[in-house]
Amino acid sequence: MTFELDKQNILGKIDKSQIGTIDSGIAEICDLINYKENYYTTSSCSGRIVLLESESDKKNEVNWLFVSHDLVDFNEASSKLSSEKDIWLRQEGAILHVCCKTIKDAEKLINLVKSIGFKRTGMISVNSRFIVEIISSEHLCAPVMKKGIKVVSDEYFKLLISEAKYKMEKNKKKLNKLTKELRNL
Amino acid sequence: MTFELDKQNILGKIDKSQIGTIDSGIAEICDLINYKENYYTTSSCSGRIVLLESESDKKNEVNWLFVSHDLVDFNEASSKLSSEKDIWLRQEGAILHVCCKTIKDAEKLINLVKSIGFKRTGMISVNSRFIVEIISSEHLCAPVMKKGIKVVSDEYFKLLISEAKYKMEKNKKKLNKLTKELRNL
Repeated sequence: MTFELDKQNILGKIDKSQIGTIDSGIAEICDLINYKENYYTTSSCSGRIVLLESESDKKNEVNWLFVSHDLVDFNEASSKLSSEKDIWLRQEGAILHVCCKTIKDAEKLINLVKSIGFKRTGMISVNSRFIVEIISSEHLCAPVMKKGIKVVSDEYFKLLISEAKYKMEKNKKKLNKLTKELRNL
Repeated sequence: MTFELDKQNILGKIDKSQIGTIDSGIAEICDLINYKENYYTTSSCSGRIVLLESESDKKNEVNWLFVSHDLVDFNEASSKLSSEKDIWLRQEGAILHVCCKTIKDAEKLINLVKSIGFKRTGMISVNSRFIVEIISSEHLCAPVMKKGIKVVSDEYFKLLISEAKYKMEKNKKKLNKLTKELRNL
């Protein structure tokens, strides 16, 4: 199948993410990329603060107790801390997968986003399709409950939320820079 | 310059890492890769537990108070918690940069390591050299001091260390699997 048909098919598909649509913090970036002939996005997240629930011995099977792509309210997050299992607070930077028509197009994109500060960027597929993964490296990851017992004080949980917000703002600044660069391209 | 000359030059250079040599947890993997004609390693870390000191408002300028590629002793780590600034505890999975002779060689390596579980793997350079970055995704990242004040109890700090160790062991299992696969290649 050609790149053009693939692009048409992928962009016409139903969004399979938990919220069922592109989150607003990264929608313009996706539009700007998809508007360009030689690129299209296959998945995206503007960054998020999440509370993940898992069994201590089955860390790969997780439930999402809380997901926010915006700045988080302490009381709202705090109200989710109810579980018989483990709960982790995580903040993750933006992530974007972009399919590129040629390896030269991929190279151009990698150089652009690296110059903006997305250091953790690379091609994750090089055989049938050239897919570039762009990751904003801000992150935070700390346990808040173990086997149903809260292991953080309210004060420390507040600090974790505040640090997560700080990292989200840094991530947001980089996304704004990328939006500007893509508009000028 | 040819790939072969590059390989010879890079492998002959003095190690620029903080410990001045390849850490033992990843030395065999580097040897196995460098033994293959079409590959050579340019940097590596077997995974680590670190204490990082930084100013609250200058998070990019950091001092390394403590680095361990092995399992960490609580008392040893605890004794480093003295600062007027912020201190973060971080656990990071293994990271490996491998230069590949052709894009086909890069593709082969990416497919191999992804099948083992190194999901965060991609080509970070595609122009003058084909460099594959392999990252083990385990991580932990939590504040332990803010502006010189300890913000974690001994109990919680112990829990952080124990969770960091658990993630290091998971990381180690994947490295062992990679060693085995490389030996069989």
